[in-house]
Parts: sequence; structure tokens; C-alpha cells
Amino acid sequence: MPDTTPPAASSIARGGFTPALAERLHALLGDKGMLTDPGDMAGYLREWRGLWTGRSPAILRPATTEECAEAVRLCAEAGVAMVPQAGNTSMVGASVPHEAGEEVVISVSRMNRILELDPVDMTMTVEAGAVLATVQQAALEADCFFPLSLGAEGTAQIGGNISTNAGGNTTLRYGNARDLVLGLEVVLPDGRVLDMLRRLRKDNTGYCLRHLFIGAEGTLGIITKAVLKLFPRPRETELAFVAVESVEAALALLNRFQRHDGASLSAFEYMMRFGLDLVFRHIPGAVDPLSARHEHYCLVELSSPRPQAQLRASMEAVLEAALEEGLVRDAVIAESDAQRAALWRLREEHSEAQKREGASIKNDVSVPVSRVPALLAEASAACRAIVPGIRVCAFGHVGDGNIHFNLAVPEGADDAAFLRRWDDVAAAVNGVVRRLGGSFSAEHGVGRLKTKTLAAWREGPELDVMRAIKRSVDPANLMNPGKVVPLA
Amino acid sequence: MPDTTPPAASSIARGGFTPALAERLHALLGDKGMLTDPGDMAGYLREWRGLWTGRSPAILRPATTEECAEAVRLCAEAGVAMVPQAGNTSMVGASVPHEAGEEVVISVSRMNRILELDPVDMTMTVEAGAVLATVQQAALEADCFFPLSLGAEGTAQIGGNISTNAGGNTTLRYGNARDLVLGLEVVLPDGRVLDMLRRLRKDNTGYCLRHLFIGAEGTLGIITKAVLKLFPRPRETELAFVAVESVEAALALLNRFQRHDGASLSAFEYMMRFGLDLVFRHIPGAVDPLSARHEHYCLVELSSPRPQAQLRASMEAVLEAALEEGLVRDAVIAESDAQRAALWRLREEHSEAQKREGASIKNDVSVPVSRVPALLAEASAACRAIVPGIRVCAFGHVGDGNIHFNLAVPEGADDAAFLRRWDDVAAAVNGVVRRLGGSFSAEHGVGRLKTKTLAAWREGPELDVMRAIKRSVDPANLMNPGKVVPLA
Repeated sequence: MPDTTPPAASSIARGGFTPALAERLHALLGDKGMLTDPGDMAGYLREWRGLWTGRSPAILRPATTEECAEAVRLCAEAGVAMVPQAGNTSMVGASVPHEAGEEVVISVSRMNRILELDPVDMTMTVEAGAVLATVQQAALEADCFFPLSLGAEGTAQIGGNISTNAGGNTTLRYGNARDLVLGLEVVLPDGRVLDMLRRLRKDNTGYCLRHLFIGAEGTLGIITKAVLKLFPRPRETELAFVAVESVEAALALLNRFQRHDGASLSAFEYMMRFGLDLVFRHIPGAVDPLSARHEHYCLVELSSPRPQAQLRASMEAVLEAALEEGLVRDAVIAESDAQRAALWRLREEHSEAQKREGASIKNDVSVPVSRVPALLAEASAACRAIVPGIRVCAFGHVGDGNIHFNLAVPEGADDAAFLRRWDDVAAAVNGVVRRLGGSFSAEHGVGRLKTKTLAAWREGPELDVMRAIKRSVDPANLMNPGKVVPLA
Repeated sequence: MPDTTPPAASSIARGGFTPALAERLHALLGDKGMLTDPGDMAGYLREWRGLWTGRSPAILRPATTEECAEAVRLCAEAGVAMVPQAGNTSMVGASVPHEAGEEVVISVSRMNRILELDPVDMTMTVEAGAVLATVQQAALEADCFFPLSLGAEGTAQIGGNISTNAGGNTTLRYGNARDLVLGLEVVLPDGRVLDMLRRLRKDNTGYCLRHLFIGAEGTLGIITKAVLKLFPRPRETELAFVAVESVEAALALLNRFQRHDGASLSAFEYMMRFGLDLVFRHIPGAVDPLSARHEHYCLVELSSPRPQAQLRASMEAVLEAALEEGLVRDAVIAESDAQRAALWRLREEHSEAQKREGASIKNDVSVPVSRVPALLAEASAACRAIVPGIRVCAFGHVGDGNIHFNLAVPEGADDAAFLRRWDDVAAAVNGVVRRLGGSFSAEHGVGRLKTKTLAAWREGPELDVMRAIKRSVDPANLMNPGKVVPLA
């Protein structure tokens, strides 16, 4: 298990959630807007995998920005710390309160309207509690496309996706969540409302505050609305499942697709044989689409809004040349939506298959794309030196240099004993990642889980500037205290 | 003329450029690295159009980050304010010192190396003083493409492009300068070095400081190095010069190109007949490619790295359908590089043609794309109400909602008298822009020219947060004081 011990009490702001404050908040928000019953509150307090369960005097569920701002103002006045929460699907414990029980949770989930969609501007204005899948669907209904896509999209809410700068499978083509946001509305830690809901493609008028709140994981304020960028809806898609000679060959193939038809390349995922073996073993219906066994695989997706985009020709041209040169050993191109779904499932079921196999230690890391082969080789060796027999199950968004470097318990070994090595194994992986100029958290963020790593890696001017910003925007340390940036 | 009166002395930091400090700086930087002769200094002190000419005790020209950091440290210790400067092509006076003569200029122009280019990562690491055209050329030599492109690219330096979040003709496809930067190195106002030269596509590890320094116009520190994103080199290009029925028809045509082949659309510029008439009148060799006169025109560019991308078919398909429906009145597609250059020239010579016609009042504004027709109609009417006979010469990046809303002196009127109306006319244009949810500075920034407008438009929480950040990163107000964010 990762280190989930509570932080020192001194790093958590203390205030008084007095009966008088409770009464004022209840008068503002009503019964639906303020939960205090333990049964009603449970889902808001528990990290979804159960890594942490916090306590809180109340869950506040404002229905509008104005209610949210007033609730924040009242809490701030009383010195009560606040934990912003959207879909509560954080991978790093960013959205649950601490065990001390002194923070209120402010959930944006009732603020879930889609306020405007403009197909000429190609923008959509949404409230923070809109579920990601709902946002995607609203775009499709207007014959547009909102590309952000990730496993939790049926539960995750857009405010959380933006607060954590979510990644996912489409980053290669469309960027991270921050690249999909034009405007924001934020309730500041003192309850004032920062209205930056501009839907402009070009606007150079002072510091770009939007990008400061995006990825701040709720430590600088509560994102309440956003203007999102939309894109033309893809009309043609081709997907290939490709066995490649090596990790280096996977990169060479990526580069060829980028140079041949980079604008159509919408996903380029890497998998290794061990991960696929787990999927074939544990996921009913999953079968190997190729006849022979190989060690390394890629999933390559091309898509385009253009009619007669001839993506099939692109796909075949690149794959055939790579096959002749020995980079590619075998490949299959999906012939139908059903086949496409089945191939994507082989990639997407990696997490579930790993879970069924037994305990896993997970690392969401990134390196410069060119250094992915070094990462896989060196981190594997480092882990094997610590836990002989450890089984590397690396896969992920190789086109972005983002590898989920996961490790399965050695065959026949004890799960609990294996998980006790989490910190040692993670440190070994991170040591390699750092030497290669990488990141200890590619898409999941810092939250509560990785504040110590952040402090260690960014020590010096970078951490100092982060702290200075936190102190200047949230001087009383009331907004999601103890998360992301550890104060000295 | 815009209001170029010096700011109140109180807003400029005061320190002592003593002989002892001069001696230490000279020992650090040498003769090449420190200019004090008025003749040598002149080019660094003068705004390129001559709107302002500042004074300074010395121009510092460090050759390395280490020299730059040490020079900043020495100045900060002595309380001497600093003005960072790259190519000195700012449109808003961001890069020249004030008239008071108490600020040193720190020029990055000697730090002009291209340090690394990785064609697998598709990244280039450069020093801040590299000229934009040199950066573009280095990318092409590695069969890659760095898309940032603007009029001053032969002089502008990449550090300045990044500090001002430069835009240009390719924003529609590739984004603004901030979207093209993966990593930064910054010398902070106290001389410490912030090393964020990471070349990662995904990295969620705390506040995204990179985006704070990008667009801060040197008020938070000096950008000394950057990691840039590269793209596949386009191999096929099609360019059309299109007469459209109306501004609304231009938007409809834009939307059709986006939906048909958005990933290939690399420029979509708007021009009006009056601007073209000026070009035909004043620019030798410029001729109308169409036989009849029309009121509204677009320049549409498609490009792709893909061989046999069939862009010609895309171009023709969209234009023919639009012609049949009456959106398009006439069009010509360039048949050669020479024809493409000639068509682009019609757009690019607008500024020069306007200059030869006489005095102009210029506004670099943006609105949501859908509101461009309202902007043109309402701002034209507002300006005519102030100066009867004023001639609207609007053109620009309509695909980004960014219009250069320029105004030519009425025929036969006095230039100087016309320019005395600058502030009134700009206020009228800005009034319309603000009502339409637009920006008073789309790509040129704030610098010294627009600090009052920034203060007026962003008054309240947004300005307060900008000020809090400025104070937290530059507490002594020594880095480019009096620019961008006016301190209270």
C-alpha cells in the first residue's frame, strides 16, 4: 500500500464549524444543499478505492455559483477549511477530507448544467458538476466532438477533470484537459468569484490565471464553470492492433505515423505480452487477434472528420513499409465497430485483469518519448533487484511518453507482503524516471498521495514559487489544505 | 497617437546603479556583455516605431544563464530595476525602459544557441535569444516544423515570442506560443534559476508555472531557455483567395472547412475591399486576382504532411458547394509557390499599404468567432460617429476571432488631427469589443501601452489575483516595473 498516513496536524488549517455557522449554511443551502447525516455523507468522505476515509462536519452542495461563493465566504470567515469535490474519482486522494474531521466538503455535483453550446465558436459552456460523458454526448448531439476521454468518464465531473488536468487516450492528438479549456469561473478561497468565462481563442491581457487553477487540484479555489473547446466530429476511424519487434520499433512506428499523417493520428498505445496474457486469462471473451505470440504490441488509431479521408490507405501504407523493414511483425486492422471495440477492450481491461491476478504496485510516470525504451529496461531491472520474480506489466500512452509502469506480485507470493514493498518499489521506479528527465505523476496529479515526492523533486525555487502562489491566493490555507503543495 | 505619457514615478522601483555595482557587473560580463556608450545603447532603448525612447545606465548582455542569473542577483541586491529584452519588437512597449533612466536593460540576444533537437521527441531546446526565423529553419533542416510565424520573425527572438505569448497566422491550427512550449528556464527577480526545462507531454506535478511566465511580458522573471514542440513538416499546401458574400458568409465558410477537413485547415484570414484597394494602390506589383470587385474576402490555406493528401479535392469540394449556395461569389486557387506567395502578399502588405495611405489608428482585438460580424458592424458605426469619414480597414485572423480593427484617416483630412482622436476611437472600439465578450489585446499584449485598460477591464478579483502573484514572485517590484499589471 502507498503511504496513506495522515499529515502532521499543523499542515491542516483549523477552524470552528460552530452551530451558528451550520445554521447560516443551512439557511443558505437548504436540506438538499447541506448533508450532515453520516449515511448521506459516506460517499463524499471515502476515496473510491478505500485508500482513505475522511471525516467532515458537513457536505455542502450548492446549486449555483452564488450559493457556492456565499458558502465559501461563510466558511472562510469562520476559519473552516474546505475540500472541493466533483466526481470524487481522484487517483491520488485529492478530493476527500482528512481524518481529523475539521474540513467541510464542497461538492459541485448539483451544478451540472450545460449552459450553452455554440457550433460556430466551437465552444461549450458548462457547470463544474456536469459528468464528462454527458459533456461528450452534448457535443455529439450538436455534431461536434469533445475529445477528453478516460476510464471514469461515466462518473468523473468536468470540474474535477479540469482541476486535475486530466489526460487519457486522446492527449496525443488533442492535448490534456488544460488544452481544451478557454475560460473558467472560480470561487476564490475568500468567496469572491473570479469570472474568466471568456470564449476567446486569443487573449493576451495579463497573467494567464486560467492555467494556474487548471491542475491545482482545488488548492487555489473551486472551479464552478468552464468554457470548453469543441472539435469537428470524426467521421472515419481506422484501428490497428500491431505486434512490433521491440519498444524501439514501437517508437519508430509512432514517428512514421506522425510524419505520414500526424493530423489523423488519434491514439498510439503500447502493451506488452505479459499484460495481454493477463487480459486473455482473466477477461471473458478476450482473445488474441494474432496467431503467433509476440513480446510488444501497439494499438494505433487514425480518425478524421473528412469524408473519404482514406485513412485505410494511410494505415496500410505505413504498416506495410514497417513490416517489410522488420519493425512490425504482424498486424490486424479492425473491419467493423465491433472489432474496434474488441481491440480497444484489450487495452482498457489491463487494470481489471491485473486486479484479478492479485496485488499490483502502480506508477503513473512519463519520460521524453525517446526515452521510453530506457525507462522500460532500467525500471524493470531496478524492480527485479528489489523483489525477485516481480512481474512488470507496463502499458500506456507511449505517444505521450506516459507509461503506467505497473508491477504484479510474483507468482505464488503473498499479496500483503508484496504491497509492503510499495514505497521501495515506487522509489526505484521514480529514481529511474528522474534520471531520464521524467515525471512522477504524468496524468493523475499529486493530491495527498504524492506531496512528499513533489517536495523532494521540486525543492528549491520551483517549490518556493508554488508555495508563494498558494500563500498569495489562499493566505489562510483554507482551500484543500495539505494537498499538492506542502507548505513549509 | 496612443497615450504614451510616462507612468507616475511611484510605480517605478528606484534603486542605485552605483559605480561599485557597475564595476561588479563589468567584471562579470566583460566589454561585450555590458554596454554603457550612448551610441551602442540606442537600439536597446528605443521602441521600434519610436513611440517611446527610454534611458538606462547600462545594457547588460549576458552570454549564459549563469551570467544572467548573477547579473540579476547583483541588480536585485542593489535595488536596481531591470527590463528584460529579446528582439525588441514588442507592439506595446513591453521591452524598453522608462524615461526616468533608473532601469538596466537585460538583453538575452547573445544567448542564441539551439541546444538540442530531438526528432523522436519532436522537441527543440533553445536559448531565449534565438531569432524566430532561425528556429523555424533549424526545424526544417531536421525535416520538422515549428509553426509560429509572424511579420517580425526575422528579428523577433523566441524568448520574447514566449514572454508575450505571440500569435500569428498559424494559431488556428497550432495555437498560440504558449501551446508550443513544453519547458522553460527562468531567472527569477532575485537571480535564482527556475529550471523547468522538461520535455514532457504529460506532467501533473503541482502548479503549472510555465503558463504563468508565458505571456507575463518579463514582469515575473527572464525566460532564458525553452523546450519547443515540433510538428511534422507539411508537404502539400493549397491556398485559395475567395470573395464571399458577407462577413457572415466568411464564418459559414470557415465552419464548413473546419467540419470537412479541420485538421488540414492552417489559415483562414479575412480582408475587406478597402484594405485590398490600399494594397493595389500602394504596393507595386499587387494585382487583383479576381475580375470583379467584391466587398469581402478570405484567404484559406490547407496543408498536410501526408503524401497524396488530396487537399485540392477538399478545397474544391468545399468551395464549389459554397459557390452554389451563394456564400462564395468567386474564388481562385493558387497553382504554384509563386502564386501562393503573391496571394499571401495581398494579406501581409495591409500594414505597409495603410502606412503609405496616411495615418492609422490600430486596434488588435478579439471576440468569440461568432461575433465577428457584430464587431465589424458595430465598431464601424461607433467610429464613424466619432470621426465622420473615417475609413475602416479591418482584417485578420477571423478563424481565431482576432481582428486588426484599423482605421485610416478620412480622405483629405489632417494626419495629426486624426491621431489626436486615438484614445476616443480606441475607447469606442473597445466599448463594442467588451460588450461582445472580447479582448482589448488579442495577440500584442499589454506592455506599457494598455496597463490602464487592463486595470479597468479586470478590476476586482482578477486584477487582485494578478497583483498578488506579481507581489509574491517579485516583492521588490524590480522586474519590468510599471508594465502589464499596474500595482495599486
